[in-house]
Amino acid sequence: MRDVYLDHYAANPVLPDVLDAMLPFFSIDFGNPSSLHTRGDIAKQAVEEAREQVASLISAPAEGLLFTSSGTEANNLAIKGIAGSARKKGNHIVASNIEHFSVLNSIATLEKAGYESTLVEVDEFGMVDPEAVKAAIRDETVLVSVMAANGEIGTIEPIKEIAAIARERGVPFHTDAVAAAGYVPLDVEELGIDALSLASDQLYGPKGSGALWVRKGMRVMPQMDGGVQEGGRRGGTENVPGIVGMGKAAELAATQRDERSEKLSTLRDALLDGLPKAAQYVTVTGHSTRRLPWNASFAVQFIEGEGMLLFLDSSGIAVSSGSACTSRALKGSHVLAACGIPPEKAQGSLLFSFGLENVPEDVDYVLEVLPPIIDRLRKMSPLYDKFLKEGGGGNGDI
Amino acid sequence: MRDVYLDHYAANPVLPDVLDAMLPFFSIDFGNPSSLHTRGDIAKQAVEEAREQVASLISAPAEGLLFTSSGTEANNLAIKGIAGSARKKGNHIVASNIEHFSVLNSIATLEKAGYESTLVEVDEFGMVDPEAVKAAIRDETVLVSVMAANGEIGTIEPIKEIAAIARERGVPFHTDAVAAAGYVPLDVEELGIDALSLASDQLYGPKGSGALWVRKGMRVMPQMDGGVQEGGRRGGTENVPGIVGMGKAAELAATQRDERSEKLSTLRDALLDGLPKAAQYVTVTGHSTRRLPWNASFAVQFIEGEGMLLFLDSSGIAVSSGSACTSRALKGSHVLAACGIPPEKAQGSLLFSFGLENVPEDVDYVLEVLPPIIDRLRKMSPLYDKFLKEGGGGNGDI
Repeated sequence: MRDVYLDHYAANPVLPDVLDAMLPFFSIDFGNPSSLHTRGDIAKQAVEEAREQVASLISAPAEGLLFTSSGTEANNLAIKGIAGSARKKGNHIVASNIEHFSVLNSIATLEKAGYESTLVEVDEFGMVDPEAVKAAIRDETVLVSVMAANGEIGTIEPIKEIAAIARERGVPFHTDAVAAAGYVPLDVEELGIDALSLASDQLYGPKGSGALWVRKGMRVMPQMDGGVQEGGRRGGTENVPGIVGMGKAAELAATQRDERSEKLSTLRDALLDGLPKAAQYVTVTGHSTRRLPWNASFAVQFIEGEGMLLFLDSSGIAVSSGSACTSRALKGSHVLAACGIPPEKAQGSLLFSFGLENVPEDVDYVLEVLPPIIDRLRKMSPLYDKFLKEGGGGNGDI
Repeated sequence: MRDVYLDHYAANPVLPDVLDAMLPFFSIDFGNPSSLHTRGDIAKQAVEEAREQVASLISAPAEGLLFTSSGTEANNLAIKGIAGSARKKGNHIVASNIEHFSVLNSIATLEKAGYESTLVEVDEFGMVDPEAVKAAIRDETVLVSVMAANGEIGTIEPIKEIAAIARERGVPFHTDAVAAAGYVPLDVEELGIDALSLASDQLYGPKGSGALWVRKGMRVMPQMDGGVQEGGRRGGTENVPGIVGMGKAAELAATQRDERSEKLSTLRDALLDGLPKAAQYVTVTGHSTRRLPWNASFAVQFIEGEGMLLFLDSSGIAVSSGSACTSRALKGSHVLAACGIPPEKAQGSLLFSFGLENVPEDVDYVLEVLPPIIDRLRKMSPLYDKFLKEGGGGNGDI
């Protein structure tokens, strides 16, 4: 049986060059960057080199880059740290309604402390309208946060336009670039970004590493109290191997961005094009052109996503039904709901996230295996039965 | 030149067996534990096995163990998460005044939100008096937090007595066991502990991993908002290799506790005994009997610790002057100050933390190299000059 991994948005393998870069820092150069001796200096130098590498990916000065334990922590630090330190200026946050839960739930936590938020709605393709952001900004707004791209549906947001609007109003602009980094150009100067979140594993670096870049002079209230690491902005002994790995991964992502994007978008397009032809009542979710090169997302009507995942898994194909962060909660996707996709359609969501080791034969295999699974499950679906009895036809929209 | 690493409280090498256990999870079994397919299941199973291993070290049920990115994060989650969720019950926290900064600064953060704290003072040996904790508990006290042992001076605290007092008053008891774990028996039932923090690297596991165990039924307000990982109590993709490494490290620490303790305490005693004999005006800090097996801490009078570190480093010996978390801030140790050691004596603090790869010859080398360094630096010291002019003598206490 073929082994086809198409769940790279959930997890990526660490690249061999990345692991090689990390290995010495586990058992040989294992020092603590804070230590005032040679082993400490070696570790500190490695962390600073990684800081340069990661900052380079977003064309940012390294001094504003803080290492965290994940993209989630970076988003927590951005929302709670930036908005939290601006309480005297105002208490209002603007974000889109398809942000990652680490952004949305951080905002919810601030709301318990007296903050307010406006979650700007997206259109059916998951696009944020810059004018809607403009209308949402108030005098009390202290932060605008809109993701660079949404991982679940692949939509690339117009963050340059949004950043310009925020800047015009003197409001800091944060972007969660976890899903976009390595594929979408992210020059913080050119785009006018004030703060940006990254996750190492999305760049084929190790899990357990992330980073938040913040523009010089911006206040960020620490969320991890402790020692004076990361300029006093994030306590805790630095995860040196993880940081080194993220640095190497960022360097590779920067140099290989174009070739990776080209390769993955070819695979993506083959599936986006092929699956709706090979199976009935399958629609593409997200945007047709402003789309991450690795993302092929679909809504399969009349069927629950989990059933398809299990059958695909038993055929050697690993995919997901949406964000891994909520999959075990088996809740409907807030992203698909935000795009106006009704629950009975959204429940059959499938997210194929392509990665560097995928080949065209993987797409062929999915196109061979998946349609019969869909047919089989659909026949068992009471929803489909009801649809047929009501004289079903057309594109199956219910 | 001999290479003698005696700074294990700052950083430990990852043990070969630990790294071996981690390696497959970087690039082969790299799945996301939340993913609903085989690769996800493999990752989830590995995380759950590690949870059992770590919980086993403290004889606790695995279900209460939450993985974090560090001991610092575990302490943040304990203090802010437990006290933070009990705001309606009360707003008072009791801790010792020699807790790690991740505890003390988390308390300080809560104080900005209306909490109050009583920091119980230790005696000259760094011991917390259970009766002082008893006296400090108020009706509004929602958490007592006293470390199992202090890493800077090695003092092992009477946490069983303190836990009993807290329980009598119906107050949850948390202990920061980062420095103690692997050396001090930590049966949470026998000791009456309700929450306990651990750090992977102190167990020769990888940096970037830690854990907080909490007793069943205890409320812990999440500090990392995001997905539903760790039972909804800590968002962010699990650092699977880091967690697996911590699990293996905990397993080894549990099985080897007695032999490690015996080996290290022999080395420790040789230095604790030898250095004050080999150099003038050197006193041992911490407790003479209730002491971590790996800790040998001293105050060297008339000299600044940093000078000694640099000279020792150039002789191949890596030590620290106190906690690595504050070393680059070059501030005096709050622990030594709490023990009533005057700043002019505390500034010459030296912390030797022994590790598994150390041998008796390492102690011999320190005893050969360090005394001449002390003599040389002391001769350059204006404080020593003043002391001599004033007719110095006795034990040099100023």
